[in-house]
Amino acid sequence: MSYVADPSSSDGEFNRDTDYIDTRITADGRDGYPVEPGRYRLIVARACPWANRTIIVRRLLGLEDVLSIGFCGPTHDERSWTFDLDPGEVDPVLGIHYLRDAYNARIPDYPKGVTVPALVDIESGQVVTNDYAQITLDFSTEWSAHHRAGAPQLYPEPLRAEIDEVAERVYTEINNGVYRCGFAGSQRAYERAYDRLFTALDWLEERLSGQRFLVGDTITEADVRLFTTLARFDPVYHGHFKTNRQKLAEFPALWAYARDLFQTPGFGDTIDFVQIKQHYYLVHSDINPTGVVPKGPDLSNWLTPHGREALGGKPFGDGTPPGPTREGERVPEGHSAG
Amino acid sequence: MSYVADPSSSDGEFNRDTDYIDTRITADGRDGYPVEPGRYRLIVARACPWANRTIIVRRLLGLEDVLSIGFCGPTHDERSWTFDLDPGEVDPVLGIHYLRDAYNARIPDYPKGVTVPALVDIESGQVVTNDYAQITLDFSTEWSAHHRAGAPQLYPEPLRAEIDEVAERVYTEINNGVYRCGFAGSQRAYERAYDRLFTALDWLEERLSGQRFLVGDTITEADVRLFTTLARFDPVYHGHFKTNRQKLAEFPALWAYARDLFQTPGFGDTIDFVQIKQHYYLVHSDINPTGVVPKGPDLSNWLTPHGREALGGKPFGDGTPPGPTREGERVPEGHSAG
Repeated sequence: MSYVADPSSSDGEFNRDTDYIDTRITADGRDGYPVEPGRYRLIVARACPWANRTIIVRRLLGLEDVLSIGFCGPTHDERSWTFDLDPGEVDPVLGIHYLRDAYNARIPDYPKGVTVPALVDIESGQVVTNDYAQITLDFSTEWSAHHRAGAPQLYPEPLRAEIDEVAERVYTEINNGVYRCGFAGSQRAYERAYDRLFTALDWLEERLSGQRFLVGDTITEADVRLFTTLARFDPVYHGHFKTNRQKLAEFPALWAYARDLFQTPGFGDTIDFVQIKQHYYLVHSDINPTGVVPKGPDLSNWLTPHGREALGGKPFGDGTPPGPTREGERVPEGHSAG
Repeated sequence: MSYVADPSSSDGEFNRDTDYIDTRITADGRDGYPVEPGRYRLIVARACPWANRTIIVRRLLGLEDVLSIGFCGPTHDERSWTFDLDPGEVDPVLGIHYLRDAYNARIPDYPKGVTVPALVDIESGQVVTNDYAQITLDFSTEWSAHHRAGAPQLYPEPLRAEIDEVAERVYTEINNGVYRCGFAGSQRAYERAYDRLFTALDWLEERLSGQRFLVGDTITEADVRLFTTLARFDPVYHGHFKTNRQKLAEFPALWAYARDLFQTPGFGDTIDFVQIKQHYYLVHSDINPTGVVPKGPDLSNWLTPHGREALGGKPFGDGTPPGPTREGERVPEGHSAG
C-alpha cells in the first residue's frame, strides 16, 4: 500500500493513514467515472497485500478483458512505486516510470503516499481512486455487467452485514495488526500489538475449525481480505514483523484454511513469494538494515492436502473456478510455492 | 562469547576469531594452575551459548562446591560483559563490575574480545582461560577427582574420537553456522551459510532418527555442544539470524531430541529464554536497530512428551541425574519454558 511507514503516535503505536482518493468508478458514473470496458487500468504490485486483493478479485470475477493490469516492481524508494519490471521500465499503457506521475496528474504535487492498488483513467493518465477497500467491493457490485459467466458472488446481498463485520475485525486486528507489530515504536507498543494480533488469530482458529470459509459456505470478499495477510505470515511477518508466537503453519485450522484458498484458482496463483519477501526486507531498511532477504521458509507445504472439503461448502457456490491465468499475468516460475 | 562481531572476510562471510587465552587448569598444574577446590571462579552469561555449555557441564558433574560461578547480565556494550545483575553491579567474589578488568589483570590492555565463559583465578583476579572448548573437556578429565558421586561420563575414553569428530562438524556447521547466517555481509554469503547450516541439520535429523543421543547411548560432551544452539534456534536464530527454512520444532527427530535433553536435569534448567532473547536482540543493534525483543515464540512446547525413551539409551549411563539446582544459581521464575 503506502510507500512509507506513517508516523507513529506518541506511545509508539503505528497508525495507518487511511485518507485515500475515494472517487468511485460506478455503473451509473455518478462521480464522473462510469464503468467502461478498456477505459481504466488497474495498477498493482504483487508484493503488496492490499493490491493483491484486487488481483485476486479481478481474476475471480473475470474482469481481465475489460480492465487491464500493470505491475509495479516489488521495491521502491521514498518517492514512488515504479514500473521497473517493464521493458524500458515504463508501463506500456500509461507510458510512465513513476506511479507518482499518475497521482500528480490527478492532484498536482500530490502530498500523500503513492500507494497501490490504484485505478487509473488511461486517457487522462489520472488516478481515479486508490481506495483499496472500496475497489474490490465495486468490482463485485458496480462491474457486475462485465463479470465472466460462472463468476462467484463475493459480496452477496444477504451476507453483506456479516462480511462487513468480519472484514472490519480482520482489518483492524490482522491485516493492519501485523504492521502494528512490525512498526511499533516501543517495546510496550509492540507487545500490546502482538497480544491483539494473536487474540484475533485465536478467534479465527476457533471460527474456522467448524466452517470452511469465513462467512457462508462459499468464498467471499472476507476470505480474500484475510488470505493476502495469511500468505505473507510465515515468509515475512513472523520474522520481519516479529509476529512470532507461532507460525501460521502451527495453527491447524487456519493453516488448512489458508492452503485450501491457496489451492483454489484465483488465490495462490496470484502469490509471488519472491517479490513479497524482496518488498518487505528491502524496502524497510529501518528494520532490516543489512538488506539480506531470508532464503526460507520452505514453501512446498502450501501444496499439501488440506482436508477442508470434509467441512462441506462449495468455493464457487453455483459458479465455477476461473480458467488459467492470462499470458503475461502469470507469476514467474520459481516464485510460487513448491 | 565475543562482545563484538568479528570482521567479515572480503566476500561477506563471517569468520569467528578463535584465538583464546589457552592456559589450562589441570590436575598436574603444568601450566601453573592446578585444579584446586575454591581457587577459581567460572564467569558466564546465561545468554551465551558457549558459556551455557560450562554451566551445564559443571552442574552435570557436580562441581558446584569446588568451583563457584558468577553471572554476567545478558547485554553489554562494546567494552565488556558486566556484572549488572549483582547487588551494586559488582561480582561479590571478584569485586569487579567489568569482566574486562579480569582480562586486563592477566594481560594489560587486553587487545581482544572480552568473552564468556572465563575461568578466573580468584586471588590474583586474573583470567586463566577463556578457551571455551577446552574448559568443558577439562571439567570432565582434569577435575574428575572432584566429580559428584554418580556423575556421568561426558567424554569417555573409548568414544573420544567419535565425539571429537561429531563435535567438530557441529561446531563449524551449526554452533558457528547460525552466526555465519546472521552476520553474513552479503546476500550471497548468507545464502551459502544457510545452505551449509541446513545441510548439517538434515544430517543430524537423519542421525538422530535412529539413536537417542549423538554418540553412544548416553549423554556426552557432543550433546551438550549441540543442545545450547538448539535451545536458541526458534527463540532467536530463526528470526534474528534468518535461519528460517524451518523451525527446530518442524524437525521431528531433532525437536524430540532437543526436548529430551531439555527435560533432562542439568540441561533445560540452565536455559534462561528471557536473557537469551534480550542478549541477541539488544546487543546486535546493527541487525535489530529498533531494539524490540520478540514476545514469541510460545515455549510451552519444550515440556511436551518427546517419546525418545523408545530408542533406548540411558542418559546418565551407570550414573545418576544431578539434584536440584543450587539456591542462587536457579533460572528465575518465568524465564524458562512453560
